[in-house]
Amino acid sequence: MERIKPRTLSGFMELQPDSQMLFERILETLRDTYSLYGFTPLDTPVIEAAEILLAKGGGETEKQIYRFTKGDSDLALRFDLTVPLAKYVALNYGKLTFPFRRFQIGKVYRGERAQRGRFREFYQADIDIIGDGKLDIINEAEIPGIIYRAFNRLGLKRFKIRINNRKILNGFYAMLDLTDKSGDVMRTIDKLDKIGAEKVRELLLEDGIPADKADSIMQFIAISGGNDAILTELENYRGKNEMFDTGLDELATVCRYLSAFGVPEENFEVDLTIARGLDYYTGTVYETVMLDHPEIGSICSGGRYDNLAEYYIDKPLPGVGISIGLTRLFYVLGEQGYLNDELVTAPADVLILPMTDDLTYAIKTATYLREAGIRTQLHCEQKKFKAKISYADKLGIPYVVFIGEDEVAGDVITLKDMDMGTQETLPVEEALSRIYQGLGHKNCGTPIRDCY
Amino acid sequence: MERIKPRTLSGFMELQPDSQMLFERILETLRDTYSLYGFTPLDTPVIEAAEILLAKGGGETEKQIYRFTKGDSDLALRFDLTVPLAKYVALNYGKLTFPFRRFQIGKVYRGERAQRGRFREFYQADIDIIGDGKLDIINEAEIPGIIYRAFNRLGLKRFKIRINNRKILNGFYAMLDLTDKSGDVMRTIDKLDKIGAEKVRELLLEDGIPADKADSIMQFIAISGGNDAILTELENYRGKNEMFDTGLDELATVCRYLSAFGVPEENFEVDLTIARGLDYYTGTVYETVMLDHPEIGSICSGGRYDNLAEYYIDKPLPGVGISIGLTRLFYVLGEQGYLNDELVTAPADVLILPMTDDLTYAIKTATYLREAGIRTQLHCEQKKFKAKISYADKLGIPYVVFIGEDEVAGDVITLKDMDMGTQETLPVEEALSRIYQGLGHKNCGTPIRDCY
Repeated sequence: MERIKPRTLSGFMELQPDSQMLFERILETLRDTYSLYGFTPLDTPVIEAAEILLAKGGGETEKQIYRFTKGDSDLALRFDLTVPLAKYVALNYGKLTFPFRRFQIGKVYRGERAQRGRFREFYQADIDIIGDGKLDIINEAEIPGIIYRAFNRLGLKRFKIRINNRKILNGFYAMLDLTDKSGDVMRTIDKLDKIGAEKVRELLLEDGIPADKADSIMQFIAISGGNDAILTELENYRGKNEMFDTGLDELATVCRYLSAFGVPEENFEVDLTIARGLDYYTGTVYETVMLDHPEIGSICSGGRYDNLAEYYIDKPLPGVGISIGLTRLFYVLGEQGYLNDELVTAPADVLILPMTDDLTYAIKTATYLREAGIRTQLHCEQKKFKAKISYADKLGIPYVVFIGEDEVAGDVITLKDMDMGTQETLPVEEALSRIYQGLGHKNCGTPIRDCY
Repeated sequence: MERIKPRTLSGFMELQPDSQMLFERILETLRDTYSLYGFTPLDTPVIEAAEILLAKGGGETEKQIYRFTKGDSDLALRFDLTVPLAKYVALNYGKLTFPFRRFQIGKVYRGERAQRGRFREFYQADIDIIGDGKLDIINEAEIPGIIYRAFNRLGLKRFKIRINNRKILNGFYAMLDLTDKSGDVMRTIDKLDKIGAEKVRELLLEDGIPADKADSIMQFIAISGGNDAILTELENYRGKNEMFDTGLDELATVCRYLSAFGVPEENFEVDLTIARGLDYYTGTVYETVMLDHPEIGSICSGGRYDNLAEYYIDKPLPGVGISIGLTRLFYVLGEQGYLNDELVTAPADVLILPMTDDLTYAIKTATYLREAGIRTQLHCEQKKFKAKISYADKLGIPYVVFIGEDEVAGDVITLKDMDMGTQETLPVEEALSRIYQGLGHKNCGTPIRDCY
């Protein structure tokens, strides 16, 4: 028989079982966290009509999209979760109750050039709050609390949520009469971290910004010294532009409620240099960086927008949302040694090794443990005892239960703690409480392990 | 601005938020149940190289598959979870520990003719146990326990797991010297439920089966009367064919351990008329039917096979697996009124309505409840009080918390139970325990509601 060489496409993440277990924990933590904030899970098709996904049209998206025909249909795979959300909200506008808070964690597809750490199929984990016509600023203030809690529960410690407000930026550039050039200016400022202030000023001058205005810009983006100091400094600009003033009020509101939302000061900062998604965002914008790995870029970003679904429906649907690129994040965390290898990643907590011809007692023990919520596997293959122990060892199964004729006669089991190497014969109810206790300890960690 | 009419492709399920919540519960229950039996979660790409998916080639699959090119690559969307598993096991053969027990719940794609209740994108929820060279019969005996527990935890009551063994069938046809015709015969017998015994006999004769052999077949498939009676009757055929005898031993083993695996007798029956997947299965085969809706067909099927990955690797990899077609099942359950509408399907358990200018106290209350695991939403939109109550009402949010100046001053909250219509002012810690208690009650049901 001629065989086909098995392979997985490059740019498609396919994990080994132990890594997959950690990834599942991350998914579960995010689902759970998003739910705590009143977001409802949504699941939209991976395939949509191409005209729907490409309604906005243009550039990179069109080149990267997976598009194909089936019968007469022009189809494509979703390249993000925002466009499907826009379609969903437009389609179900009359049935939904607003504000509509949804989370979606799912795979999206982009045919990027394959390279290490870049994926063509990857998970996004998104939340969005959509208003019908209006949406209160408090929703923008709530987002850092959600970002903080999500990463905190995953185990990340050294990260910072950076926020800015696009109204402040747009208002400021309007004051300088630079509205037409604000896009270019923001793109230049975005390079600040990489090339430094002096070089940014040079580039601004090259772009035709007059020297005095370039100085004003440099002075503005140099404003720093903590949230209160920045807000105080920004007050000096008040009264010159209405949009700026609105943005400043919004920024102040967001900062004001941070601590009530449970965000520690060290995990948050106002940063006037960030802009994000030049055309789309209209209010608060968010970035999240790992303090020890700024080179990774933002691991959770988003912002406030005015029109979610303008390509599909004649209704203003303002919203605010954030997205985590989960596949790349998981890859990077692995590369950087952040994944917690002390968690149980075995397929089972207990492996039962029967050494009797009649398996009834062993099976009943398995059924008992499973009913008590313990992940249990029976190992009844025709293999040597040593091979079976090695099976538990290789997979990292924390407990092994031996059942021989003596155990059956005595209505007990022999429990071996694989970590400690200890072994004890006891009634199954007592074994269960040992196992509960042990697993509680072994599973108390988070999937990410960060140190101070 | 010209707008594009929002639409979702036909044959693609996209649920309303309340239905999605129920679907998520089903997913969670299955993940949890499969985990209890020591299966590890696996996640493979939706896109694979077309040559991989079509390695087996042939017929319906090739017609239905979503296949397309991107750059130079000939790609396709997976049409089941078994072929990707075969690829995965072949690709990682050296790294995996056998028996390898994995579950996978994911979307698969088949471009079938669209019709009501048929889906082109649908979830499959699969488990498989793969052995390296050998796999003990006890794994086949364990499967009905998993099927039973999965449906039982979902809330289904009136269902029956039917099993048979292909070795018994093949052995029996060999006794009659009908091995060459066994495929046709089994296909005819498969119609028994629909057309009745007399018509089956006629068809057998039409197919050229001699009358005496047709009578033997009719006599064989008429064997019934409970598992013990069937096994006893089958013993009369023992000694005539080695494969038959092996199959009978296997069937006896599966039946013997059912009760130890926790399967009640009324949810299980040996049925000599079922065959399933004529070429693929080689041992025990499973079907699961809803007693009150036999017209739906099997809701969970599978069996034992000898070679998982013969198209990719020169190693015998026997296995046993089952699959639930979740999207169709969910659709049918909805149509037949089986979905439990008494469960909380709201995006939040508590809606906080602040009636103060300063929101700090309200936000702190939300943070407190969220830290206690309560799904909490703040409603701070500029809307009338009545509209906000109606928001909770429409979404079915079970509790509303009012926070006015009095509550802030007294360090209390006012909690309204939306079901009871009662309202009480009390400290947040006390409110929390009321909410816990109430939710425990409201969430104790299963996603499926079946009656005896």
